[in-house]
Amino acid sequence: MSHKLLTFFKTHVMARLLCNAVQRNCLTKNVTTSSCRKVKEEVSKLLALKAQLVTEDAGPQKFTLKTPKGTRDYNPQQMTIRNNVLDKIITVFRRHGAECIDTPVFELKDVLTGKYGEDSKLIYDLKDQGGEILSLRYDLTVPLARYLAMNKITTLKRYHIAKVYRRDNPAMTRGRYREFYQCDFDIAGVYDPMVPDAECLKVVTEILEALDIGQYILKVNHRRLLDGMFEACGVPADKFRTTCSTVDKLDKSPWEEVRTEMINEKGVSPDAADRIGEYVRLNGSTELVEKLLKDEKLSKVKAALEGVEAIKTLLQYCELFGIKDKILFDLSLARGLDYYTGVIYEAVLTQPIKIGNEEQTVGSIAGGGRYDNLVGMFDSKNKQVPCVGVSIGVERIFSVLEAKLAAGDITVRTSDIDVYVASAQKNFLEERMKICAELWDAGIKTEQSYKKNPKMLNQLQHCEENKIPLAVVLGDSELKRGVVKIRNITTREEDEVPRNDLVQEIKKRIDNLNLNQLNGAT
Amino acid sequence: MSHKLLTFFKTHVMARLLCNAVQRNCLTKNVTTSSCRKVKEEVSKLLALKAQLVTEDAGPQKFTLKTPKGTRDYNPQQMTIRNNVLDKIITVFRRHGAECIDTPVFELKDVLTGKYGEDSKLIYDLKDQGGEILSLRYDLTVPLARYLAMNKITTLKRYHIAKVYRRDNPAMTRGRYREFYQCDFDIAGVYDPMVPDAECLKVVTEILEALDIGQYILKVNHRRLLDGMFEACGVPADKFRTTCSTVDKLDKSPWEEVRTEMINEKGVSPDAADRIGEYVRLNGSTELVEKLLKDEKLSKVKAALEGVEAIKTLLQYCELFGIKDKILFDLSLARGLDYYTGVIYEAVLTQPIKIGNEEQTVGSIAGGGRYDNLVGMFDSKNKQVPCVGVSIGVERIFSVLEAKLAAGDITVRTSDIDVYVASAQKNFLEERMKICAELWDAGIKTEQSYKKNPKMLNQLQHCEENKIPLAVVLGDSELKRGVVKIRNITTREEDEVPRNDLVQEIKKRIDNLNLNQLNGAT
Repeated sequence: MSHKLLTFFKTHVMARLLCNAVQRNCLTKNVTTSSCRKVKEEVSKLLALKAQLVTEDAGPQKFTLKTPKGTRDYNPQQMTIRNNVLDKIITVFRRHGAECIDTPVFELKDVLTGKYGEDSKLIYDLKDQGGEILSLRYDLTVPLARYLAMNKITTLKRYHIAKVYRRDNPAMTRGRYREFYQCDFDIAGVYDPMVPDAECLKVVTEILEALDIGQYILKVNHRRLLDGMFEACGVPADKFRTTCSTVDKLDKSPWEEVRTEMINEKGVSPDAADRIGEYVRLNGSTELVEKLLKDEKLSKVKAALEGVEAIKTLLQYCELFGIKDKILFDLSLARGLDYYTGVIYEAVLTQPIKIGNEEQTVGSIAGGGRYDNLVGMFDSKNKQVPCVGVSIGVERIFSVLEAKLAAGDITVRTSDIDVYVASAQKNFLEERMKICAELWDAGIKTEQSYKKNPKMLNQLQHCEENKIPLAVVLGDSELKRGVVKIRNITTREEDEVPRNDLVQEIKKRIDNLNLNQLNGAT
Repeated sequence: MSHKLLTFFKTHVMARLLCNAVQRNCLTKNVTTSSCRKVKEEVSKLLALKAQLVTEDAGPQKFTLKTPKGTRDYNPQQMTIRNNVLDKIITVFRRHGAECIDTPVFELKDVLTGKYGEDSKLIYDLKDQGGEILSLRYDLTVPLARYLAMNKITTLKRYHIAKVYRRDNPAMTRGRYREFYQCDFDIAGVYDPMVPDAECLKVVTEILEALDIGQYILKVNHRRLLDGMFEACGVPADKFRTTCSTVDKLDKSPWEEVRTEMINEKGVSPDAADRIGEYVRLNGSTELVEKLLKDEKLSKVKAALEGVEAIKTLLQYCELFGIKDKILFDLSLARGLDYYTGVIYEAVLTQPIKIGNEEQTVGSIAGGGRYDNLVGMFDSKNKQVPCVGVSIGVERIFSVLEAKLAAGDITVRTSDIDVYVASAQKNFLEERMKICAELWDAGIKTEQSYKKNPKMLNQLQHCEENKIPLAVVLGDSELKRGVVKIRNITTREEDEVPRNDLVQEIKKRIDNLNLNQLNGAT
């Protein structure tokens, strides 16, 4: 042990010396401070690594049994909830004719570089193990753009449901994770203005109605209008994107804080910030469109007018789709990502959701917009494929439904077995196996105990706990008479059917049960 | 440019000096060579990083547009095939009462360490970005064991369908990838011998029947029998696992090669190898069980007898399940992974599959076995949860079906739109939008052109290409009379229905189409 400590201290001292040497080198040799910082970071990582090695040597490997930070398992109940939600979403996507694609969980790092602005630091990189440099996908939009460019596809309406990865510090209790599902619907192709854009909003309303999770609004805005507004307020063009990122924080921070950041961190003049402040508090519908078209400052800026005209068309189409009452034109909506070029949207639940005796606020539940220049970034000739799309943030929905489950507000069935093959006496394993095989081969969802001689009580209890509607009960006297008993688990009624008619009889009863359930549900 | 070059050379020289300094430090300060190597590696990485920065400054970033090595995208046709296959597999899993779980795509590296023997080198590690050390999952079995131990679950019948990751050098044309799907079915719990084990085999037969991809056999063997056989042949106990790995190569290499590896690389004596050679060429059914029970050498070894008795029971249960004719008891089956402790199995297609005018050999398509000691590796008190399971290798099935698609042997429909809303004249976008919304709100799968004034021919062509059965065709004269035309795309028949009855009429026709299709299919 003393030898190990000695080695550790020697290494430590060596690394310190090295670090100092690096600093001196940096100062004397006129190297950029950023590369100097990098070397220092690497050295301190090595120190940490060495410390770890020493700890490992000291005894058997120990670690806490857990999933990685920001990730989770799904147990069967949670999976049932998740699959129900995803099924409803897929139904809507397919109702609109979307096709399904899938891409790898990781991409060449170069594919992701320069697409996410300030958020790029949240990308998970894979270790360089020789070969290509890879990163986990951060969203499903950039992989879609890569897919379109790589395959030279110019029109596609697709959905993609998959996990994405962000090294964030999420509040997991509120349904925010480092590994989480996105459900994306996108329309790529050169079309007439706002036609696919309006359909994306229609898709979101249909999904939120299908999920039945309370009242919501769909906020819309336009990147051209934001740019035009910044121009009209006197922000220099090179500060549009970064000012936009700051406006995006309005959903979480009060205007005063956002204003301070704009002035102190982004270098926007106090006057310009105050003018922006006037605009971003505006929201409404058609009447706001008319007001902005006549606005003294905005009406002089081409981009602003284009943006407002686009929103006017969008609102008109939303009216035709019967969803205009859900739309809020909101000048404070900015969206964080760099790649949006046109309309942007965000769906927000407007009521807290009641769970047991408590209420939970969910907030933003879907977002998206138009990104006409992303595919071109992957094309050697910069050939563009205009795209618009929306992403449903299902984790928050899962989290609400799981809380409801925990509070006893909802129940789920995790398996859909129809028949349990039980035996009332010992030594019936072989007969049970034969009957199970017959039922399985007839496509009937069947289960039995894996014990040779299970207790009758345990078998029936299993049926009740798992809401299995029917049991086949085997007994000596019945088998001798060539019959078996069928038990209705709910009513506890039993009756005998000929052994040879068993499959047919079971099928009939399952059909009846399903019919009753259907009638009961309508 | 010259300034950039200058900066690059300065950095280069600095890093070289640093590297030399590290070497000197290492020599003079008596530091372990491994930590010295690590520092040098880090320094050379920094150099590479700096070089990259300079390159980036020098011009626009260029890279080949591709998916990472060993991975692929799925286009809509491939996704349709994939989802059809997975649906069939899920149907069988659920028919046997399996519940669904999911785990994160990455695990703490410690969770995977020491579970895969020689294959551990194929694990994808994530880069250390501060925080936990993570790796991508290599299979779904180890995450299941971690899940059971972490949640102290002692009984579970679950399925898990997800992608796993292996840094292999795969033959992608034959359906082998670095990112690929596994479909796992496992039964955890203390039960009577071979009852759940036999059900796993039944599940595999039902899946292969449902997929209808030709004749197959299920090879079975037992790890206790293999161990007993090695003992009987004179292999020392500490060489059982490594000898087993060598036997596993018999499906790809002839006995002579395997024998050479055993002797030269694994240190098995030539005599012992020859004795093993006698056994591993044996395969059969119940008669082989009887022969081995009487075998002079094996019958003296407890492990061997236990293994053979277990296979005897398994064959008996397979007979009750009606699948005994598919089972081949094969002493050359060894399976690569370390964690198996009991029965092992592998499903193999015995016929090449005809694709166009060519034939493709698929080979192994599912595998699994019993692993009674894996969960205990994660429990602080080493508490065991015995498990048995099977994994379906769907990528090879996808690959065969995709080849059939490419050869024109099968066709798939990638969207299931029932109605296309078209217009025969200009300026019908608004009316089309209203009708689409009505149909969507009635749950009808509907599409329209995203162009304001699409050409009639293009609209009808879209319907034919996408096999959309019905079109609503709008025209001035009809709308004035309060009617719309419904067109049957296949028969090209058109008739008029009142505009107000449209939704109802469309629903009726879709029901009829579905009914006809059902009758046509039976």
